[in-house]
Amino acid sequence: MKLAIIGVGLIGGSLALKSKKLNLFSEIIGIDKNPEHLDQALSLGIIDRQADLKQGVQVADVVMIAVPVEATISVLPQVLDYVDNQCVFDVASTKESIIHSIENHPKRKNYVASHPMWGTENSGPSAATENAFEGRSLVLCDTQNSSPEKVEYIKKLYESLGMNVIYMDAKEHDVHTAYVSHISHVTSYALANTVLEKEKQEDTIFQLASSGFSSTVRLAKSHAAMWLPIFKHNRENVLDVLDEHISQLEQFRKDLILENYDKVEDFILNANRIRGVLEEKKQKH
Amino acid sequence: MKLAIIGVGLIGGSLALKSKKLNLFSEIIGIDKNPEHLDQALSLGIIDRQADLKQGVQVADVVMIAVPVEATISVLPQVLDYVDNQCVFDVASTKESIIHSIENHPKRKNYVASHPMWGTENSGPSAATENAFEGRSLVLCDTQNSSPEKVEYIKKLYESLGMNVIYMDAKEHDVHTAYVSHISHVTSYALANTVLEKEKQEDTIFQLASSGFSSTVRLAKSHAAMWLPIFKHNRENVLDVLDEHISQLEQFRKDLILENYDKVEDFILNANRIRGVLEEKKQKH
Repeated sequence: MKLAIIGVGLIGGSLALKSKKLNLFSEIIGIDKNPEHLDQALSLGIIDRQADLKQGVQVADVVMIAVPVEATISVLPQVLDYVDNQCVFDVASTKESIIHSIENHPKRKNYVASHPMWGTENSGPSAATENAFEGRSLVLCDTQNSSPEKVEYIKKLYESLGMNVIYMDAKEHDVHTAYVSHISHVTSYALANTVLEKEKQEDTIFQLASSGFSSTVRLAKSHAAMWLPIFKHNRENVLDVLDEHISQLEQFRKDLILENYDKVEDFILNANRIRGVLEEKKQKH
Repeated sequence: MKLAIIGVGLIGGSLALKSKKLNLFSEIIGIDKNPEHLDQALSLGIIDRQADLKQGVQVADVVMIAVPVEATISVLPQVLDYVDNQCVFDVASTKESIIHSIENHPKRKNYVASHPMWGTENSGPSAATENAFEGRSLVLCDTQNSSPEKVEYIKKLYESLGMNVIYMDAKEHDVHTAYVSHISHVTSYALANTVLEKEKQEDTIFQLASSGFSSTVRLAKSHAAMWLPIFKHNRENVLDVLDEHISQLEQFRKDLILENYDKVEDFILNANRIRGVLEEKKQKH
């Protein structure tokens, strides 16, 4: 079995590294618009060789599309145009508009929509890491519109990487990822901008930044090339959860102005519940 | 030299563990209102023995006060009442109201105001860790009002733990920590409350939480006993930076509603500058 990866960056590269370790494919072919990334992926042992899109897709048995949302929407129909019996899957962070873009394609059944719940603030092949996916969730969307054997194959592939496969329809996926993933990027970007705006002495940020600050602001390093399309394609869900977030902050602000310390305390105690939610996760999986 | 620690929790316990490793004191005496914490601290080897406040302070050469802001304001004058030539220092996260509370105390010069820029979302002696302070900044405030030899002693003590000592006046300290540390706790609490409010299926939070979400929401686990007094005693500075933060989020919201994607991109690109600021920190220190 040969795997072609379109986009040899953080996610594509990480899947390639682990697949090599597990010997899952006889060859891994890299496809990327960025020739530097291809060279890096070759020298890091992420791919065995490079190819152009058509050639790479046609020689492969499995095609992974690991590029940002809009690039996925642009490349996915081309990939499906080239395939015969290949299994094609993407890993983008929103699913509804991607699935919509190929819903009438004659090769629709060859495609499986997936989203691994893992990422970092870094990008490119040098950020790829072998144990990226271990213990994380993997969402498969609208599997009723894919061929059952392709779905089964992709499920097994992710399970062999140590992931827990869950199923959602695309609409539901986009709502839940806005709540749990996309909003935390918005708050982290906004926090970075706040601190950069207020703290004009950048040296003071260096000096006072504790591990807590670094942790909260980590996602603010994430690239616009990935996140702008996510906000665009999940705009309504992001706005919906953002409204709730602003209203939480307004409530805290009002209580602090009025010195309603009982309410400020309730605000903290309620937030503390997230510990139980995340620790329950650890125990369950 | 004997050290008495009032509050054998995360910070007091961490300083004790590292001091023991470096053999800095002949005895470490624990003082705490919570008898369970004293027992834990004893069994974890954090302290050599326990004492009551008066007895512990009088037998010690150095007294560390490592309790939340309001508890510090309440215990510091009592400690100064008991001291002869002892050096007394606190580690609380706001400084102006603490320093104000003892400004006319006859033993004012025995006291050095300090704030180590380290912490975690956990508390109590079991959260203490030997290498807590290594490479972090330590702020000394209003040192002109302390005896020079006490300041020099505390500076050396922290330097021996691997910290970089910087000086600020208390007012300036409270402004900068609101910008760089306190606001990130507000945003993290608000993010946790947002997600808990929107995502009623808590199991979905478990499943979809990536390392990015966990990182951004980590500080939301921090205890009210520590953070409520910080918000109370640094209220004006926290409100000032919170207003900027809400205005950043409102701007993002407006641009996303109007589909001003160039502006959304600028918002992300500006936030990305935090990478340079934090990495410069790593290189410099």
